[in-house]
Amino acid sequence: MGRVYNFSAGPAVLPEEVLKEAADEMLDYRGSGMSVMEMSHRSKVYESILSEAESDLRELMQIPDQYKVLFLQGGAHLQFSMIPQNLMKKGVADYIITGQWAKKAFKEAQKYGRTVAVASSEDKTFSYIPDCSDLPIDDDADYVYICENNTIYGTKFKKLPDTKGKTLVSDVSSCFLSEPVDVTKYGVIYGGVQKNIGPAGVVIVIIREDLITDDVLPGTPTMCSYKIHADANSLYNTPPAYGIYICGKVFKWLKKRGGLAAMKEYNEQKAAILYDFLDSSSMFSGTVVKEDRSLMNVPFITGNDELDTLFIKAAAAAGFVNLKGHRSVGGMRASIYNAMPIEGVKSLVAFMKKFEGEYQA
Amino acid sequence: MGRVYNFSAGPAVLPEEVLKEAADEMLDYRGSGMSVMEMSHRSKVYESILSEAESDLRELMQIPDQYKVLFLQGGAHLQFSMIPQNLMKKGVADYIITGQWAKKAFKEAQKYGRTVAVASSEDKTFSYIPDCSDLPIDDDADYVYICENNTIYGTKFKKLPDTKGKTLVSDVSSCFLSEPVDVTKYGVIYGGVQKNIGPAGVVIVIIREDLITDDVLPGTPTMCSYKIHADANSLYNTPPAYGIYICGKVFKWLKKRGGLAAMKEYNEQKAAILYDFLDSSSMFSGTVVKEDRSLMNVPFITGNDELDTLFIKAAAAAGFVNLKGHRSVGGMRASIYNAMPIEGVKSLVAFMKKFEGEYQA
Repeated sequence: MGRVYNFSAGPAVLPEEVLKEAADEMLDYRGSGMSVMEMSHRSKVYESILSEAESDLRELMQIPDQYKVLFLQGGAHLQFSMIPQNLMKKGVADYIITGQWAKKAFKEAQKYGRTVAVASSEDKTFSYIPDCSDLPIDDDADYVYICENNTIYGTKFKKLPDTKGKTLVSDVSSCFLSEPVDVTKYGVIYGGVQKNIGPAGVVIVIIREDLITDDVLPGTPTMCSYKIHADANSLYNTPPAYGIYICGKVFKWLKKRGGLAAMKEYNEQKAAILYDFLDSSSMFSGTVVKEDRSLMNVPFITGNDELDTLFIKAAAAAGFVNLKGHRSVGGMRASIYNAMPIEGVKSLVAFMKKFEGEYQA
Repeated sequence: MGRVYNFSAGPAVLPEEVLKEAADEMLDYRGSGMSVMEMSHRSKVYESILSEAESDLRELMQIPDQYKVLFLQGGAHLQFSMIPQNLMKKGVADYIITGQWAKKAFKEAQKYGRTVAVASSEDKTFSYIPDCSDLPIDDDADYVYICENNTIYGTKFKKLPDTKGKTLVSDVSSCFLSEPVDVTKYGVIYGGVQKNIGPAGVVIVIIREDLITDDVLPGTPTMCSYKIHADANSLYNTPPAYGIYICGKVFKWLKKRGGLAAMKEYNEQKAAILYDFLDSSSMFSGTVVKEDRSLMNVPFITGNDELDTLFIKAAAAAGFVNLKGHRSVGGMRASIYNAMPIEGVKSLVAFMKKFEGEYQA
């Protein structure tokens, strides 16, 4: 078959024109006589790929000058350690637990200091975002941590928590560049790129300069110091060069599409098509409290495990793939990141309607 | 221009047929309807890419069953910390200092215990490998560490050190898969792939199972525990999936070429062409003690900085690129990894002869 509609939660669909360009440039990047995979990361040609990627990202997100942009390795998982190793000066951090990733980050931070779960939605299988307007933020908290969009459960913070003046750290892996953000509200915004931006193996960290210091916890690997990477402009060691190159292409694609405001509008349209159908369907229903629904990850169920399995199989056969929900929750999940065209969502809904008609007949 | 002869020390030249295959599969990997970049790392199709890569590597290196193969992130630099964090049970490690990378590993390990430089070739700018037949190995040493091929200086251990029964840990980044090795002589063999195997962003660690334990140093990030990755078969978190896919293609290319014994023969032929010329030239000379010369990285000089610069420029214009020596040593360096065809080396030598003739006329 040709290209499928890929609803994978990550790694996930990338813009077809980005992949085409990458294929065209594979043996010879713009007259360099080599692939980007074969280039010295200290060559002029690669340095311009890296610096263009950074400046395009800065433009897209309107990142102020007092924030550094770092392209790192190790995924969000390594950030779970790096954040406390670099930011825990007083040894205390507050976490808001809205799913498995926030919980993992919370547990990892326990190695490095006192961590407090100041709010959680675990009581209802993380199907909502807790009220964060008046949390018991610790006076000594070095930061307040959130996972802004919860890939597995399909929730999203529509309003950032009131951190009572403390530094906000946010994992945006699954909503990265899906809509405009006010960077100044955060101390650290970070995410793995493999959901909305590029191939797995790159993590982007946007961090306010005053949080970057030599004063890291004892035993912190050199590779886990933000200062080391910031001082070297992400070239302390060989970066995941090819991955960054693809991210750069996606940034250019986003600019051409009109930037993050336009993407937000498009993503809202796509999500509305799916959510509206779920709200009207007699077979399918969403699993998340309406006001906390993610624009990127849409979990849904039929209420019948066997029917879920049948649906997933029939959908895959029709070219709608990776609709199985996360192994920890079951059911279905459609991830509709930036690169999922609106036609993909429309076609999926048409297929769901047809499926519903056939099985209820 | 078309493809150049790329003598970069890393990231470095890859086999043209691997790049062609990757380009062909970019939009649709073998009927999956998606790029390998877009695949869930937990999908069957990706899991088979990963497991084939591992089994091909095991076959190529004849890796015994009691060794685990891990595909990780963070490059050799993160291994500089992970090795002591995982292996320093008694808090002591011996390092043999044969260049900048061994030295960096040595310094990083000082964060975690007592490290001893039991030998060094720094007295002569790392232009030789010290005698390692009777080293003052510490009775309590948890391991003895070497950098087996020194990319910057062009030296290679032709005989492994006598570790007096202690675990040998070897960084093989720049000689990975260039010749057969006896894996049983090592506790840990590891390397970044971006020199001889694939795109930057993947590090391969081959580790004897008894060295993989839960007992890591306090504060070790979960992502830095070998056990975590070993237990999950390199799928604890999202791996650098596309890079591993390219590595897998290179493994298949090596098998088709006849495996590591055949590569050794080919690499020896290539290196001999260049070294023989350097030994006979009146303009160019090698910088390394003959018996310690690397098959992969060949540094050379004219003895005149201006002439070096002229040569590098003229060579680049003729399609022989990245011949500049490392910024810390100057001169020239030709890295002639597995994927550099013998024609590339022959053409380079022909060019050097011509240059020599012209400038000495």
